[in-house]
Amino acid sequence: MTLSIVDLSEIRAVATRELVFGAVREALVAHAEGRTQLPPPIAMVFPEVGGDCHVKAGHLTGAPYFGVKVAAGFYRNAERGLPSNSGLILVLDAATGVPAAVLADEGWLTAWRTAAAGALVTHALTPPGVDEVGVLGTGLQARLQVEWLHALRPLTRVRVWGRRPEAVRGLCADLDLDARPATIEEAAGSPCVLTATPATSPLAPASAFAGALHVTGIGTDLPGKGELPPELFAGAALVATDDHAQCLDHGDFGNAVRAGVTGPESDLAVGVVLRDGVTRPGLSIADLTGLGVADAAVASAVFTALAR
Amino acid sequence: MTLSIVDLSEIRAVATRELVFGAVREALVAHAEGRTQLPPPIAMVFPEVGGDCHVKAGHLTGAPYFGVKVAAGFYRNAERGLPSNSGLILVLDAATGVPAAVLADEGWLTAWRTAAAGALVTHALTPPGVDEVGVLGTGLQARLQVEWLHALRPLTRVRVWGRRPEAVRGLCADLDLDARPATIEEAAGSPCVLTATPATSPLAPASAFAGALHVTGIGTDLPGKGELPPELFAGAALVATDDHAQCLDHGDFGNAVRAGVTGPESDLAVGVVLRDGVTRPGLSIADLTGLGVADAAVASAVFTALAR
Repeated sequence: MTLSIVDLSEIRAVATRELVFGAVREALVAHAEGRTQLPPPIAMVFPEVGGDCHVKAGHLTGAPYFGVKVAAGFYRNAERGLPSNSGLILVLDAATGVPAAVLADEGWLTAWRTAAAGALVTHALTPPGVDEVGVLGTGLQARLQVEWLHALRPLTRVRVWGRRPEAVRGLCADLDLDARPATIEEAAGSPCVLTATPATSPLAPASAFAGALHVTGIGTDLPGKGELPPELFAGAALVATDDHAQCLDHGDFGNAVRAGVTGPESDLAVGVVLRDGVTRPGLSIADLTGLGVADAAVASAVFTALAR
Repeated sequence: MTLSIVDLSEIRAVATRELVFGAVREALVAHAEGRTQLPPPIAMVFPEVGGDCHVKAGHLTGAPYFGVKVAAGFYRNAERGLPSNSGLILVLDAATGVPAAVLADEGWLTAWRTAAAGALVTHALTPPGVDEVGVLGTGLQARLQVEWLHALRPLTRVRVWGRRPEAVRGLCADLDLDARPATIEEAAGSPCVLTATPATSPLAPASAFAGALHVTGIGTDLPGKGELPPELFAGAALVATDDHAQCLDHGDFGNAVRAGVTGPESDLAVGVVLRDGVTRPGLSIADLTGLGVADAAVASAVFTALAR
């Protein structure tokens, strides 16, 4: 067995934005067309130490490799001076089943594929001339969503809202753009709005989004979360979901369906939006819950590039 | 991250029979007492190349590590000069979630934990004086079941039956014991009988087992398999299962329950048999379908020994 561990610096050397955008776009389209294998994940809990571990596997039909991602979150690790999150992606040969590599990505491939999925659909659904975005959230994903979108369409103005002023100032300083702290009304009222928070209830009422042409929500990765007001969906001309069942289960789309403001079949697959360039006049919303097969596609692309 | 790949020679150096017996015994007892975490596995299929991949995770409460096992079977690999089976066990720290090691065991830890579980329960349920065994099957597990049982109680006579005479002669030659080819009636009629085949229907009628005091079946690892005649269970004084639900689903015990010859609650946990030394006069049967938590326990014990 020639199994090897690929560390983050080696991964960074090949995982360009172009590679990640390409792999994620392919995964989203393939998923919309049913050309993916995405079995239910494994979940384990470690209540004594406040930990959990998820194992997700996926394969994009025809890709040379498939992936098994192990992601652990142990929330008392800080007491030991360790990061809360750890994990890796195991890459296996889809023709032989032989393990090919362990991508010790420290969670970065997941962060990048999330950024890529968000930027792709935001760019596709936001009218061409728009170069101003509002960001709700100040974490890593808030930053990546802006940076990766900026790589697809140059942004001239970024309005950042967050609960903690110092985090807002930090993000504005980190972004190599005209980024300024804003009220939630200013940020949510931008023509293009990105939400990337761990919120469990709507960040603002639907009226705050009155100026928005497009909204992408990426915070609802687990049941119990919610960022967007359900009423926002009532007025949307187009709702795109990365996975219909998953978004219905724990996305903001599902929250809106349960609130009775939109129908359970009113969404369109993000992959169809990207493939066919679907747009509609009026407000569009993209609800992203995170696609395991995007991990597999990015891992396959990274390993293919490394093996060259 | 100090993640490392541990190869088979390093694993062999610490995975003594004593270590594996100890870890498997502990796992079986803990499982019977509900002190294990064993989520449903992930299954993927690769029909174009005749492949499948299973991911199983497990944790024995209190063990310092938990395990995620990836096992692939790609049945056209021989055409490429590769073994059909491959895989590894990822060992993670149960206190922090941090990946600790990749055990590149080439399937051997699974083979050894299966051998250990079989030998432990066979030894526990076979009357003390018995030193003659009959073996139905000629593969790796048939050999390991005999060798590991011989390590617990010296055997003086082994009677081997299999479908292919050359495989029978091969196993007899491999065993460093008085092992001889036998008819199925001679093998199944031994006082202690081990079945280790991929059979999908009973190997012999119940009458062939008339001389048996104990029978251990280890072949039914997947739905659709079956080695023992259901009628054999009708006459059994004790039936031990490694996992009640799993054996009911796809063990010979489940086949017997579905045939109506025994009740669905007529079994006892192997872990209880080992812990309490339960025996009963008359025929005993052990039905082993393979316990994922035994993988985790052995992987944890191996890595603990390596880390010393």
